Amino acid sequence: MAIRFTQNPIITTKDITPSQSGFVVECVMNPGAFRFEDKIWLLLRVSERAPQKEGKVSLPIMKANGEIRHLEFDQNDPQLDISDPRKFSYNGNMYLSTISHLRLVCSEDGIHFYEPKDFPAKIFGQGLLETYGIEDCRVSFFEGFYNLTYTQVSENGVGVGLIRTQDWKNFSRMGMILPPHNKDCALFEEKIGNKYYCLHRPSGIGLGGNYIWIADSENLTHWGGHQCILHTREGMWDSSRVGAGTSPIKTKEGWLAIYHGADHTSRYCLGAFLLDLKDPSKVLARSSVPIMEPTEDYEINGFFNNVIFTNGHVIDGDKITMYYGAADEVICAAELSVSSILSSLNKKESLI
Amino acid sequence: MAIRFTQNPIITTKDITPSQSGFVVECVMNPGAFRFEDKIWLLLRVSERAPQKEGKVSLPIMKANGEIRHLEFDQNDPQLDISDPRKFSYNGNMYLSTISHLRLVCSEDGIHFYEPKDFPAKIFGQGLLETYGIEDCRVSFFEGFYNLTYTQVSENGVGVGLIRTQDWKNFSRMGMILPPHNKDCALFEEKIGNKYYCLHRPSGIGLGGNYIWIADSENLTHWGGHQCILHTREGMWDSSRVGAGTSPIKTKEGWLAIYHGADHTSRYCLGAFLLDLKDPSKVLARSSVPIMEPTEDYEINGFFNNVIFTNGHVIDGDKITMYYGAADEVICAAELSVSSILSSLNKKESLI
Repeated sequence: MAIRFTQNPIITTKDITPSQSGFVVECVMNPGAFRFEDKIWLLLRVSERAPQKEGKVSLPIMKANGEIRHLEFDQNDPQLDISDPRKFSYNGNMYLSTISHLRLVCSEDGIHFYEPKDFPAKIFGQGLLETYGIEDCRVSFFEGFYNLTYTQVSENGVGVGLIRTQDWKNFSRMGMILPPHNKDCALFEEKIGNKYYCLHRPSGIGLGGNYIWIADSENLTHWGGHQCILHTREGMWDSSRVGAGTSPIKTKEGWLAIYHGADHTSRYCLGAFLLDLKDPSKVLARSSVPIMEPTEDYEINGFFNNVIFTNGHVIDGDKITMYYGAADEVICAAELSVSSILSSLNKKESLI
Repeated sequence: MAIRFTQNPIITTKDITPSQSGFVVECVMNPGAFRFEDKIWLLLRVSERAPQKEGKVSLPIMKANGEIRHLEFDQNDPQLDISDPRKFSYNGNMYLSTISHLRLVCSEDGIHFYEPKDFPAKIFGQGLLETYGIEDCRVSFFEGFYNLTYTQVSENGVGVGLIRTQDWKNFSRMGMILPPHNKDCALFEEKIGNKYYCLHRPSGIGLGGNYIWIADSENLTHWGGHQCILHTREGMWDSSRVGAGTSPIKTKEGWLAIYHGADHTSRYCLGAFLLDLKDPSKVLARSSVPIMEPTEDYEINGFFNNVIFTNGHVIDGDKITMYYGAADEVICAAELSVSSILSSLNKKESLI
């Protein structure tokens, strides 16, 4: 159903200059995507690591004032757990192995991307809620504003931040709009019944799980009316976690949302679900099988194996040009069709 | 510093009639407290259990339509973990051992409480987000409304709900105002700089912890501007979790908030912190040692040992009459003094 670009991966770490000397770009992934000034733009997540000294494991942390400091651990320290390449655990405390910022690139053809000359290319974390970086930005456009919903990471927890811009030169930081633990926030690109809506993914401890929720707002910064709309499904490809991609696509049949589902081996596939046009808390249909799963070498082998993760696409009629992170390391693209996804959905699937 | 009522415990399970035949009242605890019609009122949390058959463990769950169904497990099933009296774990899924609702009682003297005749005495969970019950309600009064912020529990997760009433006869349910995992939401009883504020306690997975956050709102139902203001403190009495009591008390020196802190043995004590009057995200001082800790038999031995937990008090000048759950089983009261707590706070304590 998905036609991958023959040029995949279209962006790799070799294409990205480090944000500061001494840093190594470890991954470039999970781009937001949008149209602006007749071009296609991506807002990449760039993950960087400090150079590793022999026998040591070190990681960068940003102070609230923007300075970087390095934490360093002895590689053989028994309190250090480096079994997951994405993070360290030391003496029960968790750290990320890399720090991410967002990087702006643009393209005439949607395949070959470059850094724009007249725009600030980098957005870094700021303040106490972003000291471990910012990640996985969705870009939604409506009412003249680009709305950037992204993951804020710090020792205080993982939440959702909002940045707004009209011109990609001046940015308004609106703070944390969804408190920990929350990720994968996708705004609907128009009001429904006089309210804004978003999909989001709180993670429970004990009760609950990694489910997709919906919320409403009058101003995009303050959210309420939280409802749980999509569960994981035991024994299926989305048994462990589900999370929205970018903004749902408005169709005659309903709001079509693409989402990622991971199983208990952390294999990430993509699926879709359909929401009622007037009441987007109602799920009408859902994928029984993935619409896309890791099959190519660049999706199977990388920084974190077996991952297809999307938080950005551009739409042209029935055509979805979807950008995605592959194996948590590189950026790829594929074409999908709105009507094909719609006709693949199972309307009898247990929806929650 | 705290003078316990000689009548403690003032309410026990013997004082509470079950909400339906066949149910057993296991605990009565963690009351919200307020003044209304020249009386002192408590909104109790009543936890009930289904009668246990020999060799079985059963627990009640409410369906979205309000009907109760019972889940039953074989006591010797190796997949069943009943090591914590508050919950079951079965095959990796968590359930509560009891289901809670809220129960209204009133008193002329603040010591002897009875069910009011002309008011609905029970508030039950409703809908998909409260199927495992509702718990630990704070009651705040301002602008003519009583605002009930409470814990909503279901298989979807644990979040904060809001109910509003003016007369304790007609109630408006405002839905989930803070998504999972969140508890311990205490509203400030007036606007500060044109905004409402609340303290809340999201729980992180991986990064973050059980910290106290602050948020702001224009309408009490939609919240944003989330900031982390109070961490747990390693090696201290509040090393594992902290959470706000009820509404902060306005004093000349700042907003005085009473909070619970638990250590790694889940011993719950009370402390306090002081917030800036104009910018309540600024912590000015904090307790180094508890203002109250479990010392009495009814606090040390019960359904869950070594717990003092408060989410309700009434204020009369310098006097705080604090109601609290003891050992997660009974309700007690104590008098504290605003000025004594203020003078006990450490202004040099590391605040976050």
